[in-house]
Amino acid sequence: MDKTLLIQEKRLLRIKECLQKRQPDLRLYLENVQNHHNVSAIIRTADAVGILHIYYSLQKNLPVNDAITCGAHKWVILEKVEDQADFLKKMKSQGFQIVATALTPDAIDFRDIDYTRPLVIVMGNELEGISEELKNKADIICKIPMHGMVQSLNVSVATALILYEAQRQREQKGFYSKKRISSELEAELIKKWGIY
Amino acid sequence: MDKTLLIQEKRLLRIKECLQKRQPDLRLYLENVQNHHNVSAIIRTADAVGILHIYYSLQKNLPVNDAITCGAHKWVILEKVEDQADFLKKMKSQGFQIVATALTPDAIDFRDIDYTRPLVIVMGNELEGISEELKNKADIICKIPMHGMVQSLNVSVATALILYEAQRQREQKGFYSKKRISSELEAELIKKWGIY
Ligand SMILES: C[S@@+](CC[C@H](N)C(=O)[O-])C[C@H]1O[C@@H](n2cnc3c(N)ncnc32)[C@H](O)[C@@H]1O
Ligand SMILES: C[S@@+](CC[C@H](N)C(=O)[O-])C[C@H]1O[C@@H](n2cnc3c(N)ncnc32)[C@H](O)[C@@H]1O
Repeated sequence: MDKTLLIQEKRLLRIKECLQKRQPDLRLYLENVQNHHNVSAIIRTADAVGILHIYYSLQKNLPVNDAITCGAHKWVILEKVEDQADFLKKMKSQGFQIVATALTPDAIDFRDIDYTRPLVIVMGNELEGISEELKNKADIICKIPMHGMVQSLNVSVATALILYEAQRQREQKGFYSKKRISSELEAELIKKWGIY
Repeated sequence: MDKTLLIQEKRLLRIKECLQKRQPDLRLYLENVQNHHNVSAIIRTADAVGILHIYYSLQKNLPVNDAITCGAHKWVILEKVEDQADFLKKMKSQGFQIVATALTPDAIDFRDIDYTRPLVIVMGNELEGISEELKNKADIICKIPMHGMVQSLNVSVATALILYEAQRQREQKGFYSKKRISSELEAELIKKWGIY
Protein backbone atom coordinates (compact mmCIF):
# COMPACT_ATOMS: atom_id res chain seq x y z
CA MET A 1 0.00 0.00 0.00
CA ASP A 2 1.21 3.54 -0.64
CA LYS A 3 2.62 5.32 2.42
CA THR A 4 0.07 8.14 2.70
CA LEU A 5 -2.73 5.61 2.57
CA LEU A 6 -1.09 3.60 5.33
CA ILE A 7 -0.86 6.67 7.55
CA GLN A 8 -4.50 7.46 6.87
CA GLU A 9 -5.49 3.91 7.75
CA LYS A 10 -3.62 4.08 11.02
CA ARG A 11 -5.16 7.42 11.87
CA LEU A 12 -8.64 6.14 11.13
CA LEU A 13 -8.03 3.17 13.38
CA ARG A 14 -6.89 5.48 16.14
CA ILE A 15 -10.00 7.65 15.76
CA LYS A 16 -12.19 4.58 15.95
CA GLU A 17 -10.44 3.29 19.05
CA CYS A 18 -10.74 6.67 20.66
CA LEU A 19 -14.46 6.94 19.90
CA GLN A 20 -14.99 3.63 21.71
CA LYS A 21 -13.94 5.43 24.88
CA ARG A 22 -15.81 8.70 24.54
CA GLN A 23 -18.27 9.46 27.36
CA PRO A 24 -21.29 11.20 25.82
CA ASP A 25 -23.01 11.60 29.20
CA LEU A 26 -20.18 13.51 30.87
CA ARG A 27 -20.05 17.02 29.48
CA LEU A 28 -18.23 20.24 30.19
CA TYR A 29 -19.56 23.77 30.15
CA LEU A 30 -17.06 26.66 30.28
CA GLU A 31 -19.00 29.65 31.56
CA ASN A 32 -17.06 32.59 30.27
CA VAL A 33 -13.62 31.03 30.68
CA GLN A 34 -11.47 33.55 28.82
CA ASN A 35 -7.77 32.81 28.83
CA HIS A 36 -6.53 30.90 25.79
CA HIS A 37 -3.93 28.97 27.78
CA ASN A 38 -6.62 27.76 30.18
CA VAL A 39 -9.15 26.92 27.49
CA SER A 40 -6.55 25.00 25.50
CA ALA A 41 -5.26 23.03 28.49
CA ILE A 42 -8.86 22.18 29.41
CA ILE A 43 -9.63 20.84 25.95
CA ARG A 44 -6.49 18.71 26.05
CA THR A 45 -7.48 17.23 29.44
CA ALA A 46 -11.05 16.70 28.26
CA ASP A 47 -9.78 14.66 25.31
CA ALA A 48 -7.68 12.56 27.68
CA VAL A 49 -10.62 11.55 29.87
CA GLY A 50 -12.92 10.92 26.93
CA ILE A 51 -15.12 14.03 27.00
CA LEU A 52 -16.95 14.50 23.72
CA HIS A 53 -19.06 17.64 24.29
CA ILE A 54 -17.64 20.96 25.44
CA TYR A 55 -19.96 23.97 25.64
CA TYR A 56 -18.84 27.55 26.09
CA SER A 57 -20.52 30.91 26.53
CA LEU A 58 -17.96 33.40 25.24
CA GLN A 59 -19.15 36.09 22.88
CA LYS A 60 -16.03 35.81 20.75
CA ASN A 61 -14.74 32.58 19.30
CA LEU A 62 -13.22 30.13 21.75
CA PRO A 63 -9.55 31.08 22.11
CA VAL A 64 -7.80 27.86 21.18
CA ASN A 65 -4.03 27.55 20.92
CA ASP A 66 -3.00 24.60 18.78
CA ALA A 67 0.43 24.31 20.44
CA ILE A 68 -1.23 23.86 23.83
CA THR A 69 -4.17 21.66 22.85
CA CYS A 70 -1.79 19.53 20.73
CA GLY A 71 -4.70 19.24 18.32
CA ALA A 72 -7.19 17.99 20.93
CA HIS A 73 -9.80 20.56 19.81
CA LYS A 74 -10.20 18.58 16.59
CA TRP A 75 -11.41 15.53 18.51
CA VAL A 76 -14.19 17.04 20.62
CA ILE A 77 -17.47 18.73 19.78
CA LEU A 78 -17.22 22.43 20.68
CA GLU A 79 -20.56 24.20 20.90
CA LYS A 80 -21.33 27.81 21.69
CA VAL A 81 -24.17 28.47 24.14
CA GLU A 82 -26.22 31.45 23.00
CA ASP A 83 -28.93 31.36 25.64
CA GLN A 84 -27.78 29.98 28.97
CA ALA A 85 -31.22 29.59 30.57
CA ASP A 86 -32.35 27.66 27.54
CA PHE A 87 -29.23 25.51 27.51
CA LEU A 88 -29.57 24.51 31.17
CA LYS A 89 -33.24 23.68 30.70
CA LYS A 90 -32.48 21.55 27.66
CA MET A 91 -29.72 19.62 29.42
CA LYS A 92 -31.88 18.97 32.46
CA SER A 93 -34.76 17.78 30.29
CA GLN A 94 -32.32 15.28 28.73
CA GLY A 95 -31.60 13.88 32.18
CA PHE A 96 -28.33 15.68 32.93
CA GLN A 97 -27.56 17.05 36.37
CA ILE A 98 -25.74 20.38 36.49
CA VAL A 99 -22.61 20.45 38.66
CA ALA A 100 -21.28 23.92 39.41
CA THR A 101 -17.79 24.38 40.86
CA ALA A 102 -17.39 27.15 43.37
CA LEU A 103 -15.91 27.80 46.77
CA THR A 104 -19.22 28.51 48.49
CA PRO A 105 -19.58 27.38 52.14
CA ASP A 106 -22.28 24.85 51.28
CA ALA A 107 -20.33 23.27 48.39
CA ILE A 108 -19.67 19.54 48.82
CA ASP A 109 -16.29 17.86 48.30
CA PHE A 110 -15.75 17.08 44.62
CA ARG A 111 -14.87 13.49 45.49
CA ASP A 112 -18.30 12.90 47.03
CA ILE A 113 -20.08 13.18 43.69
CA ASP A 114 -21.23 10.14 41.71
CA TYR A 115 -19.70 10.86 38.31
CA THR A 116 -21.18 7.80 36.65
CA ARG A 117 -24.49 9.64 36.28
CA PRO A 118 -25.15 11.97 33.31
CA LEU A 119 -23.51 15.25 34.33
CA VAL A 120 -22.65 18.64 32.95
CA ILE A 121 -19.66 20.03 34.86
CA VAL A 122 -19.56 23.83 34.85
CA MET A 123 -16.33 25.80 35.26
CA GLY A 124 -16.33 29.54 35.87
CA ASN A 125 -14.55 32.66 34.74
CA GLU A 126 -10.96 33.29 35.89
CA LEU A 127 -11.85 36.38 37.92
CA GLU A 128 -15.57 36.28 38.62
CA GLY A 129 -16.06 32.54 39.01
CA ILE A 130 -19.48 31.00 38.32
CA SER A 131 -22.48 33.31 37.81
CA GLU A 132 -25.31 33.63 40.32
CA GLU A 133 -27.71 32.23 37.72
CA LEU A 134 -25.68 29.09 37.50
CA LYS A 135 -25.24 28.68 41.22
CA ASN A 136 -29.00 28.97 41.62
CA LYS A 137 -29.86 26.52 38.87
CA ALA A 138 -27.16 23.93 39.60
CA ASP A 139 -28.21 20.59 41.10
CA ILE A 140 -24.88 20.26 42.92
CA ILE A 141 -22.18 22.74 43.89
CA CYS A 142 -18.79 21.21 44.58
CA LYS A 143 -15.37 22.39 45.65
CA ILE A 144 -11.83 21.08 45.71
CA PRO A 145 -10.25 21.24 49.20
CA MET A 146 -7.41 23.73 49.64
CA HIS A 147 -4.80 23.93 52.40
CA GLY A 148 -2.70 26.93 51.40
CA MET A 149 -2.56 30.70 51.42
CA VAL A 150 -4.19 31.23 48.03
CA GLN A 151 -8.00 31.01 47.78
CA SER A 152 -8.60 29.27 44.47
CA LEU A 153 -6.95 27.07 41.88
CA ASN A 154 -6.25 27.86 38.26
CA VAL A 155 -9.37 26.92 36.30
CA SER A 156 -7.61 24.41 34.02
CA VAL A 157 -6.19 22.70 37.09
CA ALA A 158 -9.59 22.58 38.81
CA THR A 159 -11.17 21.13 35.66
CA ALA A 160 -8.55 18.40 35.45
CA LEU A 161 -8.98 17.35 39.08
CA ILE A 162 -12.73 16.97 38.64
CA LEU A 163 -12.54 15.23 35.29
CA TYR A 164 -9.95 12.74 36.54
CA GLU A 165 -12.06 11.90 39.56
CA ALA A 166 -14.83 11.17 37.04
CA GLN A 167 -12.37 9.12 34.99
CA ARG A 168 -11.42 7.07 38.05
CA GLN A 169 -15.03 6.27 38.89
CA ARG A 170 -16.00 5.52 35.31
CA GLU A 171 -12.93 3.35 34.77
CA GLN A 172 -13.88 1.34 37.84
CA LYS A 173 -17.33 0.73 36.40
CA GLY A 174 -15.95 -0.36 33.04
CA PHE A 175 -17.18 2.72 31.15
CA TYR A 176 -14.05 2.81 29.00
CA SER A 177 -14.21 -0.77 27.83
CA LYS A 178 -17.59 -0.68 26.14
CA LYS A 179 -18.73 1.75 23.46
CA ARG A 180 -21.02 4.43 24.91
CA ILE A 181 -21.85 6.64 21.93
CA SER A 182 -24.58 5.76 19.46
CA SER A 183 -23.63 4.09 16.19
CA GLU A 184 -25.10 7.04 14.28
CA LEU A 185 -22.90 9.56 16.09
CA GLU A 186 -19.92 7.25 15.73
CA ALA A 187 -20.41 7.00 11.95
CA GLU A 188 -20.93 10.77 11.67
CA LEU A 189 -17.73 11.57 13.59
CA ILE A 190 -15.62 9.03 11.74
CA LYS A 191 -16.73 10.61 8.48
CA LYS A 192 -16.07 14.12 9.73
CA TRP A 193 -12.81 13.50 11.58
CA GLY A 194 -11.37 11.01 9.14
CA ILE A 195 -10.62 13.76 6.63
CA TYR A 196 -8.44 15.98 8.81
CA MET B 1 -6.14 48.60 67.54
CA ASP B 2 -5.20 50.57 64.42
CA LYS B 3 -6.46 49.10 61.17
CA THR B 4 -3.11 48.26 59.54
CA LEU B 5 -2.04 46.43 62.65
CA LEU B 6 -5.28 44.44 62.62
CA ILE B 7 -4.68 43.39 59.02
CA GLN B 8 -1.13 42.37 59.88
CA GLU B 9 -2.34 40.34 62.85
CA LYS B 10 -4.86 38.53 60.67
CA ARG B 11 -2.27 37.82 58.01
CA LEU B 12 0.15 36.45 60.56
CA LEU B 13 -2.55 34.19 61.93
CA ARG B 14 -3.25 32.93 58.42
CA ILE B 15 0.44 32.24 57.81
CA LYS B 16 0.65 30.29 61.04
CA GLU B 17 -2.45 28.24 60.23
CA CYS B 18 -1.08 27.51 56.81
CA LEU B 19 2.30 26.40 58.15
CA GLN B 20 0.49 23.86 60.35
CA LYS B 21 -0.52 22.11 57.13
CA ARG B 22 2.70 22.24 55.15
CA GLN B 23 4.12 18.85 54.14
CA PRO B 24 7.91 19.06 54.33
CA ASP B 25 8.36 15.47 53.15
CA LEU B 26 6.47 15.89 49.89
CA ARG B 27 8.54 17.93 47.47
CA LEU B 28 8.42 18.97 43.85
CA TYR B 29 11.23 19.16 41.33
CA LEU B 30 10.59 20.94 38.02
CA GLU B 31 13.18 19.60 35.63
CA ASN B 32 13.50 22.31 33.03
CA VAL B 33 9.82 23.28 33.01
CA GLN B 34 9.95 26.48 30.97
CA ASN B 35 6.61 28.13 30.36
CA HIS B 36 5.71 30.84 32.84
CA HIS B 37 2.01 29.99 32.74
CA ASN B 38 2.77 26.39 33.64
CA VAL B 39 5.29 27.21 36.35
CA SER B 40 2.93 29.72 37.93
CA ALA B 41 -0.08 27.39 37.89
CA ILE B 42 2.09 24.64 39.40
CA ILE B 43 3.22 26.88 42.29
CA ARG B 44 -0.40 27.82 42.97
CA THR B 45 -1.45 24.17 43.10
CA ALA B 46 1.54 23.29 45.26
CA ASP B 47 0.52 25.92 47.81
CA ALA B 48 -3.01 24.47 47.86
CA VAL B 49 -1.86 20.96 48.74
CA GLY B 50 0.66 22.17 51.30
CA ILE B 51 3.93 21.73 49.40
CA LEU B 52 6.73 23.71 51.00
CA HIS B 53 9.79 22.91 48.83
CA ILE B 54 9.89 23.40 45.07
CA TYR B 55 13.16 22.79 43.25
CA TYR B 56 13.87 23.78 39.65
CA SER B 57 16.71 23.36 37.21
CA LEU B 58 16.31 26.28 34.81
CA GLN B 59 19.38 28.29 33.94
CA LYS B 60 17.47 31.55 34.04
CA ASN B 61 15.31 32.66 36.94
CA LEU B 62 12.06 30.78 37.44
CA PRO B 63 9.44 32.50 35.25
CA VAL B 64 6.77 33.39 37.77
CA ASN B 65 3.68 35.39 36.88
CA ASP B 66 2.12 37.01 39.93
CA ALA B 67 -1.32 37.24 38.33
CA ILE B 68 -1.35 33.46 37.80
CA THR B 69 0.25 32.34 41.05
CA CYS B 70 -2.00 34.80 42.95
CA GLY B 71 0.99 35.33 45.20
CA ALA B 72 1.53 31.63 45.98
CA HIS B 73 5.27 31.88 45.17
CA LYS B 74 5.68 33.94 48.33
CA TRP B 75 4.53 31.03 50.51
CA VAL B 76 6.79 28.25 49.26
CA ILE B 77 10.54 27.75 49.30
CA LEU B 78 11.85 27.96 45.73
CA GLU B 79 15.33 26.53 45.25
CA LYS B 80 17.47 26.32 42.15
CA VAL B 81 19.26 23.02 41.50
CA GLU B 82 22.75 23.67 40.17
CA ASP B 83 24.00 20.10 40.02
CA GLN B 84 21.28 17.55 39.38
CA ALA B 85 23.33 14.44 40.20
CA ASP B 86 24.30 16.00 43.49
CA PHE B 87 20.75 17.04 44.27
CA LEU B 88 19.32 13.56 43.66
CA LYS B 89 22.02 11.98 45.78
CA LYS B 90 21.37 14.40 48.62
CA MET B 91 17.61 13.85 48.56
CA LYS B 92 18.05 10.07 48.55
CA SER B 93 20.49 10.23 51.44
CA GLN B 94 17.83 12.15 53.37
CA GLY B 95 15.39 9.28 52.85
CA PHE B 96 13.41 10.65 49.92
CA GLN B 97 12.30 8.47 47.04
CA ILE B 98 12.42 10.01 43.57
CA VAL B 99 9.22 9.73 41.54
CA ALA B 100 9.60 10.57 37.86
CA THR B 101 6.55 11.16 35.68
CA ALA B 102 6.72 9.87 32.14
CA LEU B 103 4.71 7.89 29.66
CA THR B 104 7.15 4.99 29.45
CA PRO B 105 5.70 1.50 28.96
CA ASP B 106 6.90 0.31 32.37
CA ALA B 107 5.50 3.32 34.27
CA ILE B 108 3.01 2.42 36.98
CA ASP B 109 -0.36 4.14 37.49
CA PHE B 110 0.06 7.32 39.53
CA ARG B 111 -2.70 6.18 41.89
CA ASP B 112 -0.74 3.08 42.88
CA ILE B 113 1.94 5.08 44.67
CA ASP B 114 2.03 5.48 48.45
CA TYR B 115 2.29 9.25 48.78
CA THR B 116 2.54 9.22 52.55
CA ARG B 117 6.22 8.33 52.27
CA PRO B 118 8.88 11.05 51.80
CA LEU B 119 8.85 11.74 48.07
CA VAL B 120 10.28 14.11 45.51
CA ILE B 121 7.91 14.29 42.52
CA VAL B 122 9.70 15.21 39.30
CA MET B 123 7.91 16.91 36.39
CA GLY B 124 9.54 17.25 32.98
CA ASN B 125 10.03 19.79 30.24
CA GLU B 126 7.06 20.72 28.01
CA LEU B 127 8.62 19.29 24.86
CA GLU B 128 11.33 16.86 25.91
CA GLY B 129 9.76 15.42 29.05
CA ILE B 130 11.98 13.98 31.77
CA SER B 131 15.70 13.48 31.06
CA GLU B 132 17.30 10.07 30.67
CA GLU B 133 19.41 10.75 33.75
CA LEU B 134 16.32 11.21 35.82
CA LYS B 135 14.53 8.19 34.41
CA ASN B 136 17.55 6.09 35.27
CA LYS B 137 17.95 7.41 38.78
CA ALA B 138 14.28 7.52 39.74
CA ASP B 139 12.97 4.98 42.26
CA ILE B 140 9.54 5.01 40.66
CA ILE B 141 8.24 6.07 37.23
CA CYS B 142 4.53 6.81 37.10
CA LYS B 143 2.00 7.86 34.51
CA ILE B 144 -1.51 9.23 34.39
CA PRO B 145 -3.86 7.12 32.25
CA MET B 146 -5.08 8.71 29.01
CA HIS B 147 -8.02 7.72 26.80
CA GLY B 148 -7.91 10.29 24.00
CA MET B 149 -6.17 11.21 20.78
CA VAL B 150 -3.45 13.37 22.31
CA GLN B 151 -0.44 11.66 23.89
CA SER B 152 0.31 13.75 26.96
CA LEU B 153 -1.22 16.23 29.37
CA ASN B 154 -0.18 19.79 29.99
CA VAL B 155 2.53 19.70 32.68
CA SER B 156 0.63 21.91 35.15
CA VAL B 157 -2.38 19.62 34.81
CA ALA B 158 -0.27 16.48 35.33
CA THR B 159 1.35 18.02 38.41
CA ALA B 160 -2.03 18.86 39.92
CA LEU B 161 -3.40 15.36 39.41
CA ILE B 162 -0.45 13.79 41.17
CA LEU B 163 -0.32 16.30 44.00
CA TYR B 164 -4.04 15.95 44.68
CA GLU B 165 -3.77 12.18 44.82
CA ALA B 166 -1.06 12.77 47.44
CA GLN B 167 -3.36 15.24 49.21
CA ARG B 168 -6.15 12.65 49.30
CA GLN B 169 -3.92 9.98 50.82
CA ARG B 170 -2.31 12.35 53.31
CA GLU B 171 -5.66 13.81 54.35
CA GLN B 172 -6.90 10.29 55.05
CA LYS B 173 -3.94 9.68 57.33
CA GLY B 174 -4.47 12.94 59.21
CA PHE B 175 -1.34 14.62 57.83
CA TYR B 176 -3.11 17.99 57.62
CA SER B 177 -4.34 18.06 61.20
CA LYS B 178 -1.00 17.85 62.97
CA LYS B 179 2.01 20.11 62.45
CA ARG B 180 4.67 18.41 60.34
CA ILE B 181 7.41 21.00 60.03
CA SER B 182 10.01 21.55 62.72
CA SER B 183 9.52 24.37 65.21
CA GLU B 184 12.78 25.93 64.03
CA LEU B 185 11.63 26.06 60.41
CA GLU B 186 8.23 27.32 61.51
CA ALA B 187 9.78 30.18 63.47
CA GLU B 188 12.12 31.02 60.62
CA LEU B 189 9.32 31.17 58.04
CA ILE B 190 6.98 33.18 60.25
CA LYS B 191 9.74 35.72 60.70
CA LYS B 192 10.51 35.81 56.98
CA TRP B 193 6.96 35.70 55.63
CA GLY B 194 5.40 37.90 58.27
CA ILE B 195 6.97 41.02 56.78
CA TYR B 196 5.56 40.77 53.25
C1 LIG C 1 -9.84 31.19 39.57
S1 LIG C 1 -11.38 30.47 39.88
C2 LIG C 1 -12.44 31.86 40.19
C3 LIG C 1 -12.21 32.47 41.50
C4 LIG C 1 -13.27 33.49 41.86
N1 LIG C 1 -12.63 34.53 42.61
C5 LIG C 1 -14.36 32.83 42.71
O1 LIG C 1 -14.52 33.25 43.86
O2 LIG C 1 -15.07 31.97 42.22
C6 LIG C 1 -11.98 30.01 38.28
C7 LIG C 1 -12.81 28.77 38.30
O3 LIG C 1 -12.01 27.65 38.64
C8 LIG C 1 -12.77 26.70 39.36
N2 LIG C 1 -12.13 26.52 40.68
C9 LIG C 1 -10.97 27.05 41.11
N3 LIG C 1 -10.65 26.61 42.33
C10 LIG C 1 -11.63 25.76 42.70
C11 LIG C 1 -11.86 24.95 43.85
N4 LIG C 1 -11.00 24.91 44.88
N5 LIG C 1 -12.99 24.20 43.88
C12 LIG C 1 -13.85 24.21 42.84
N6 LIG C 1 -13.67 24.94 41.73
C13 LIG C 1 -12.58 25.71 41.64
C14 LIG C 1 -14.19 27.25 39.42
O4 LIG C 1 -14.90 26.77 38.30
C15 LIG C 1 -13.95 28.76 39.29
O5 LIG C 1 -15.08 29.42 38.79
C1 LIG D 1 3.92 17.69 27.84
S1 LIG D 1 4.69 16.51 28.81
C2 LIG D 1 6.14 16.04 27.87
C3 LIG D 1 5.80 15.21 26.72
C4 LIG D 1 7.03 14.62 26.06
N1 LIG D 1 6.78 14.55 24.67
C5 LIG D 1 7.31 13.23 26.64
O1 LIG D 1 7.25 12.29 25.85
O2 LIG D 1 7.60 13.09 27.82
C6 LIG D 1 5.47 17.46 30.07
C7 LIG D 1 5.54 16.77 31.40
O3 LIG D 1 4.23 16.61 31.93
C8 LIG D 1 4.13 15.41 32.68
N2 LIG D 1 3.09 14.57 32.06
C9 LIG D 1 2.27 14.91 31.04
N3 LIG D 1 1.39 13.93 30.79
C10 LIG D 1 1.63 12.94 31.67
C11 LIG D 1 1.04 11.66 31.94
N4 LIG D 1 0.00 11.22 31.24
N5 LIG D 1 1.57 10.94 32.93
C12 LIG D 1 2.61 11.38 33.66
N6 LIG D 1 3.20 12.57 33.46
C13 LIG D 1 2.72 13.35 32.48
C14 LIG D 1 5.52 14.80 32.68
O4 LIG D 1 6.23 15.28 33.79
C15 LIG D 1 6.11 15.37 31.40
O5 LIG D 1 7.52 15.40 31.43
